[in-house]
Amino acid sequence: MTAALLTDKYELTMLAAALRDGTAHRRTTFEVFARRLPEGRRYGVVAGTARFVEALAEFTFDDTALQALSDFLDSDTLEYLADYRFRGDVDGYAEGELYFPGSPVLAVHGSFGECVVLETLALSIFNHDTAIASAAARMASVAEGRTLIEMGSRRTHEQAAVAAARAAYLAGFAGSSNLEAQRRHGVPALGTSAHAFTLLHTSAEGPDEVAAFRAQVDALGVGTTLLVDTYDITAGVANAVEVAGPELGAVRIDSGDLGVLARQVRAQLDELGATETRIVVSGDLDEFAIAGLRAEPVDIYGVGTSVVTGSGAPTASMVYKLVEVDGIAVEKRSLHKESHGGRKRATRLAKPSGTVVEELVYPAGEAAPQSELVARDLTVPLVQNGEPVADLDLSAARDRVAAGLESLPWDGLKLSRGEPAIPTRMIPSADRGA
Amino acid sequence: MTAALLTDKYELTMLAAALRDGTAHRRTTFEVFARRLPEGRRYGVVAGTARFVEALAEFTFDDTALQALSDFLDSDTLEYLADYRFRGDVDGYAEGELYFPGSPVLAVHGSFGECVVLETLALSIFNHDTAIASAAARMASVAEGRTLIEMGSRRTHEQAAVAAARAAYLAGFAGSSNLEAQRRHGVPALGTSAHAFTLLHTSAEGPDEVAAFRAQVDALGVGTTLLVDTYDITAGVANAVEVAGPELGAVRIDSGDLGVLARQVRAQLDELGATETRIVVSGDLDEFAIAGLRAEPVDIYGVGTSVVTGSGAPTASMVYKLVEVDGIAVEKRSLHKESHGGRKRATRLAKPSGTVVEELVYPAGEAAPQSELVARDLTVPLVQNGEPVADLDLSAARDRVAAGLESLPWDGLKLSRGEPAIPTRMIPSADRGA
Repeated sequence: MTAALLTDKYELTMLAAALRDGTAHRRTTFEVFARRLPEGRRYGVVAGTARFVEALAEFTFDDTALQALSDFLDSDTLEYLADYRFRGDVDGYAEGELYFPGSPVLAVHGSFGECVVLETLALSIFNHDTAIASAAARMASVAEGRTLIEMGSRRTHEQAAVAAARAAYLAGFAGSSNLEAQRRHGVPALGTSAHAFTLLHTSAEGPDEVAAFRAQVDALGVGTTLLVDTYDITAGVANAVEVAGPELGAVRIDSGDLGVLARQVRAQLDELGATETRIVVSGDLDEFAIAGLRAEPVDIYGVGTSVVTGSGAPTASMVYKLVEVDGIAVEKRSLHKESHGGRKRATRLAKPSGTVVEELVYPAGEAAPQSELVARDLTVPLVQNGEPVADLDLSAARDRVAAGLESLPWDGLKLSRGEPAIPTRMIPSADRGA
Repeated sequence: MTAALLTDKYELTMLAAALRDGTAHRRTTFEVFARRLPEGRRYGVVAGTARFVEALAEFTFDDTALQALSDFLDSDTLEYLADYRFRGDVDGYAEGELYFPGSPVLAVHGSFGECVVLETLALSIFNHDTAIASAAARMASVAEGRTLIEMGSRRTHEQAAVAAARAAYLAGFAGSSNLEAQRRHGVPALGTSAHAFTLLHTSAEGPDEVAAFRAQVDALGVGTTLLVDTYDITAGVANAVEVAGPELGAVRIDSGDLGVLARQVRAQLDELGATETRIVVSGDLDEFAIAGLRAEPVDIYGVGTSVVTGSGAPTASMVYKLVEVDGIAVEKRSLHKESHGGRKRATRLAKPSGTVVEELVYPAGEAAPQSELVARDLTVPLVQNGEPVADLDLSAARDRVAAGLESLPWDGLKLSRGEPAIPTRMIPSADRGA
């Protein structure tokens, strides 16, 4: 299916007008950036880069699309679209890099016509994936090495769920419940069991948790995770170990005061000899609840709603702005929306220890600012002449998130509301004065 | 593409275990409902019903899907899935009905095997679409007949955007910027212009807003909407009327204090003789901002982020619960999660004036409770033996939302936080005592 109609109508009417007066062929740069992080957040995680680069190849107008557009576009515009394929360049931050307010996360270079129609697609992908990855990274950071499983597919749109699973994995989750995310993106698929399975084992004589556990262990082996809170947790744990033996993989608790229950269940498991059986907790966990359980004997967190909805920030407020036309820097004049014209590059400065200090954004045609600190270029080529040129590997992006979190000053990892972990300094063009 | 992998792994491992011990063939009812509305909301709008019924037809396991599952499922389960097609029944609320805590919005009847695998798909669709429609209905309600345009595609996942456009339209929006929503669901596509188009008309001599407006009017006619706040709004309005004449369709203001600006622009337009030119405002509008602009000369609201993210409630917290097995009511015992076993139906009671008073949820096999009020059945057949049987027309669903809002007691339409507009009374089975 074509991605070309995942587009706002005004992009195509603007294209029609620009084709008519010839401006559609001017050389332009559009930049994707966020003016701010979500309220109180200290960093964001760039996500969606690979999905965007891959979607570019599907962004063509087939007969179905052209037919749908023929009621409001003239024949010149329809002909232009029939031939459309993005042939420009894209550069920006590698997926998994941290970003801060003003970071030029992506820049799209090409004719106005070929760039303007990509606005919605680019923003939809970056705003969604970045919102999820940014929330997930906070969870991964406070989980301090304990395993996180994304299980929120049911709380978000069915296709958003696949991208959310990918973004959570990118940010440090061990995997997801979502099977399509495994097939499409190689995200490890993980799972436990539901109350429905235990309830299914009910007869006229009443519930039969032991029968449910036995069926699950028979089919999936003793390494499985048994859900022990359908009726009574203490009885559930006893039944689980009775059925599976002390080799039982894990038990899951999905309700109640998880900290108290985790301690009780750990003690009970140990007493029953199931000292290696792990404890999975789930049920409305967010980064604060995960942090609150750090002192408890929890092995695995199952996280749903909060991660797939960005934990209070379901979109990343990135914008797609025209910053340069035929080499001329352009920007909107507006009191409250700071914008910076001209094509840019970015570099991040760190102490020799690796702790980052500042991000510099400077005009693309000029030399990188000198510094005694260790500078690392953030702007890398992603697409050249319409062809992908970057390594879009998800596991490399995962490593970038981990390294980015490692590089933050201590304050940057605090969950509490605060300022961005490092400042972004916008260096004006030498042409235009300081 | 198959929808079958838009599924959590545990549904298929449970299926494998249930096939092995024979329980997969037990007759079951799963129910979709929300234990609560989002914090402080007074009603919700059921959305997603048609998308779910249509997705059922695509929920089959093709070779690609089976291949992806073959690493963790046994051959009996894979064979079962190869033949899988939902052949059961679905009933529930017609799309566009209001709902309240405990409303049995959807019920899926069939063997455990055929029902359990639909959990994620059903919840993803209902939780997403309902969250958007519920937020959008509040906006439509406070807009009091003024036109609302959904333009938030860029703020959410690219496919979620299509469903969000549909849900907003369902709830009373006039249309959406999203082109795929028009093609796929018949949602009217609407649009204006972007700052990029004005900025594109910049030369070495500087910006040229007049050239941009002229290009747009030449291509799209004087009925178009010109964006007047790229540089200076007063100059922008003057330029707009100079170029298009007093027949100009509309101007859009996207920044600043929208109320103050709308008044100024209205006065200026009237003075220029453009008395019929409408004013479109946009920029971080939500239901509260829309209400706040009711006294201002605003004709059209463009709403983005807030509507596609559910205005603070991006998911509807609906759950999919097994409530009946072979005619036996089942439910989880848990302190904090109220659950009610058994297959149910619902009816809503209203005064003769049409104002609703109470919703009754009662066991499906028993007679509807008697009342002197006007009762309306809410549970309608949607799918029988796997085949859709309901009218899934979107405009009929739109009418239902409008009628539902009309039927609420006055308090139910307040934006402020409060209790559900009407109580839901759960009537226990006569078999099980009161």
